[in-house]
Amino acid sequence: MTMRPGKLYGLGTGPGDPELLTLKAVRALGEAQIVAHFAKQGSAGNAQKIVAAHVRPDQALLPLLYPVTVEIEKDHQDYRSAIAGFFDEAAARVATELEAGRTVAVLSEGDPFFYGSYMHLHVRLAHRFETEVVPGVTAMSGCWSAAGVPLMQGDDVTTVLPGTLPEAELVRRLSDTDAAVIMKVGRNLPKIRRALKSVGRLPTAVYVERGTMEGGLAVSLADKADDHAPYFSFVLVPGWKGRPQASAANEVAA
Amino acid sequence: MTMRPGKLYGLGTGPGDPELLTLKAVRALGEAQIVAHFAKQGSAGNAQKIVAAHVRPDQALLPLLYPVTVEIEKDHQDYRSAIAGFFDEAAARVATELEAGRTVAVLSEGDPFFYGSYMHLHVRLAHRFETEVVPGVTAMSGCWSAAGVPLMQGDDVTTVLPGTLPEAELVRRLSDTDAAVIMKVGRNLPKIRRALKSVGRLPTAVYVERGTMEGGLAVSLADKADDHAPYFSFVLVPGWKGRPQASAANEVAA
Repeated sequence: MTMRPGKLYGLGTGPGDPELLTLKAVRALGEAQIVAHFAKQGSAGNAQKIVAAHVRPDQALLPLLYPVTVEIEKDHQDYRSAIAGFFDEAAARVATELEAGRTVAVLSEGDPFFYGSYMHLHVRLAHRFETEVVPGVTAMSGCWSAAGVPLMQGDDVTTVLPGTLPEAELVRRLSDTDAAVIMKVGRNLPKIRRALKSVGRLPTAVYVERGTMEGGLAVSLADKADDHAPYFSFVLVPGWKGRPQASAANEVAA
Repeated sequence: MTMRPGKLYGLGTGPGDPELLTLKAVRALGEAQIVAHFAKQGSAGNAQKIVAAHVRPDQALLPLLYPVTVEIEKDHQDYRSAIAGFFDEAAARVATELEAGRTVAVLSEGDPFFYGSYMHLHVRLAHRFETEVVPGVTAMSGCWSAAGVPLMQGDDVTTVLPGTLPEAELVRRLSDTDAAVIMKVGRNLPKIRRALKSVGRLPTAVYVERGTMEGGLAVSLADKADDHAPYFSFVLVPGWKGRPQASAANEVAA
């Protein structure tokens, strides 16, 4: 007898606030026998916390634990090998569940296809199993909404930049875009600040951390006195030059 | 007696599939006495269709009807004046409801702050009334998820480009980014196609229309025989050069 394989869901959980789950994510989660999630050793992971209220006791959690942390020496060959091997192994574990006929929801913070770890499983599994990607609200949407800062409008060009880029590259790209979203801030904040200053965009830049979560913070980057920032914070650089100016003073709501 | 003003919600409805509403959007919608939405003359508007199942008979609809269509002569002074006047008037109508103590949900397709019309009301009203922006799943997330095409990963730079840009500008920017999302395709499609071809990225580009809706379509742009495209279609240009190649043949699921 051949078992009918289970279905794979790449399930976007949104940026952190459990209310920002979509109706579809809740429904797909309810269909899953296995709820898989990426996490670091010793941490439950944010995605699991976001969906906790919707997970039933009869559903099994499948933690996929990163072998190494994400902010160290990404260009090193050992790191690349370890990570590729990890994703191969994680995909194999998920495949085993799917082959046994179980539906697996792989949680992905934000939107699964917007820089999400789920993508590494998708490219290894989607050609072998019935697969559906449930899009989610991105972390950047959560951040600019919570901060109340409009960034892009009309025919603006928007650039999403990793804060890991070299300073000269940040300068070049920030001077050649209307709006910008800088991700992976963390210890790159002093460099990001210098790049924004050199292109004259520091005064309008907004720093956001934990946008839609408890203890979330949004401040003008120019007013942020220290250079401490978690890895998953954002710097938002507004475009929309032609916007009405009436409410400019009201923009940043901490 | 002074009336306590109502609350303003900028309410993201997501990209089209009603299941992609967030729990928060449904809750906020339930709190509103007035459901406002932008629409063209003679059309109910997509946003209203997306939330239709959640609107009660006791809630009043407030259609905000564009005086002109959006794809004609945007740089013309008459157009700009007409549009600015329209947003002033729409904001005044919403303000009247808020001042009368009624909570108003302004529907916004996708994410309100990602190129949404709601932003024009936000900058006119958020400094005067209690305001909350409920982020939504963007149309681009809906499109790349429905198409099953991973675009950006790791330290990729992503550029969001309006298809209205001059061809030389599209060429320049497409040759200087990892991933790209081209919006406002419509009659700009032949130009977009030429720009992608000249930078060698036509073979991987994907054309998507009505991503998460009935009759949605995702095809390799190179395989699309005609140049017909609705205004709100997308062209997706994948980055993620280092991705595993196993499932490349499986990527575009029409």
